[in-house]
Amino acid sequence: MARNKHPEQTFEKIVVTAARLFVEKGYEQTSVQDILDATGLSKGGLYHHFKSKEQILDAVMQRRIQYVNKRFQELIRNTPGKNAKEKLKKILGQLAADAETHALDQALASQLDPHFVVNGIQTCVDQDAPIVAGLIREGNHDGSLHVQQPELCAEVFLMLLNYWANPVLFHRNSEETKVRLRYLQSVMIQLGLDLIDDSLIADLIQAYVQ
Amino acid sequence: MARNKHPEQTFEKIVVTAARLFVEKGYEQTSVQDILDATGLSKGGLYHHFKSKEQILDAVMQRRIQYVNKRFQELIRNTPGKNAKEKLKKILGQLAADAETHALDQALASQLDPHFVVNGIQTCVDQDAPIVAGLIREGNHDGSLHVQQPELCAEVFLMLLNYWANPVLFHRNSEETKVRLRYLQSVMIQLGLDLIDDSLIADLIQAYVQ
Repeated sequence: MARNKHPEQTFEKIVVTAARLFVEKGYEQTSVQDILDATGLSKGGLYHHFKSKEQILDAVMQRRIQYVNKRFQELIRNTPGKNAKEKLKKILGQLAADAETHALDQALASQLDPHFVVNGIQTCVDQDAPIVAGLIREGNHDGSLHVQQPELCAEVFLMLLNYWANPVLFHRNSEETKVRLRYLQSVMIQLGLDLIDDSLIADLIQAYVQ
Repeated sequence: MARNKHPEQTFEKIVVTAARLFVEKGYEQTSVQDILDATGLSKGGLYHHFKSKEQILDAVMQRRIQYVNKRFQELIRNTPGKNAKEKLKKILGQLAADAETHALDQALASQLDPHFVVNGIQTCVDQDAPIVAGLIREGNHDGSLHVQQPELCAEVFLMLLNYWANPVLFHRNSEETKVRLRYLQSVMIQLGLDLIDDSLIADLIQAYVQ
């Protein structure tokens, strides 16, 4: 068999195809053979890059982290706002409406694939929260926010917003979800992070219904 | 082969053995064959009760839910206290020190088996929080607590205490965990649920170190 002259393209192909299969079938229901069939690669071609399905999962998750980080950074650079609070509110609104960000997460969450839920929780606390904390510090500085311990506040906010208030994880209807988003709104106001408004709640409910 | 005259004992044996194997090896690394070997059952003997490993997992998780509920109810009945707040604080202290409650959870969490983490999150919000909310309502009634929306407050409290502040899930050291427990203490004080004190924080750090 001819040697692959573009190993990075093969790597890419495996990761993209595996992500699609994990979304369609669930991680545990996807076999290495399924990935071979869908990519048309030989066993040797795949094992050159990945020794196991777990390693492919790691690469898929790594890509999700990179994607969200890139998207976050883009939004931070390109979202106008008279201060950090307004900027953060707009960014949250855009993320809620951003179908692409949700595609992988939602599809995986709706299958409740526990690997993705746990990885998502770790990513939101370890990777996303520090980015939000940076903007909170900016808001404390420009006077639009008054948050003590921005890092910890961001962790709590994202953990509750993305997971506790997630209807898929707890099989909740829109009304039950709305009640929780309103409670989260009141909690965050008490912590000085007044970002959740009626329009964000409406956008989130809308995103979850889809 | 003689028919089993005590099907409920066989069921029990499978669930207990499977729980032990899941703890020792992890859920995904445990095969049905491992469970057959460890119980000495035939394939037919096991499949009479469970059609798949997933069904065994469900039974193990069901048992964990029943155990924690029973333990909670016992503590609520048998823990003395001059009011609901004092009672809740003592119950939390006892749960933190209760090795048996932690055995399954900790062992599974330390392997970070995502099935157990996700099921644990769902159980804590859907099953444990309503029990805590009952005691919070009692505290609102006897004047020892002043909590709005006891159900939602209990959900947020348990989700943050058991998962966000969990060092195993985020690979944190004792100091990083202590900082989060102190922040949670200040958040819960603002929500009117002043239950976390220095001795609970010390007990939790101690329990996690083990």
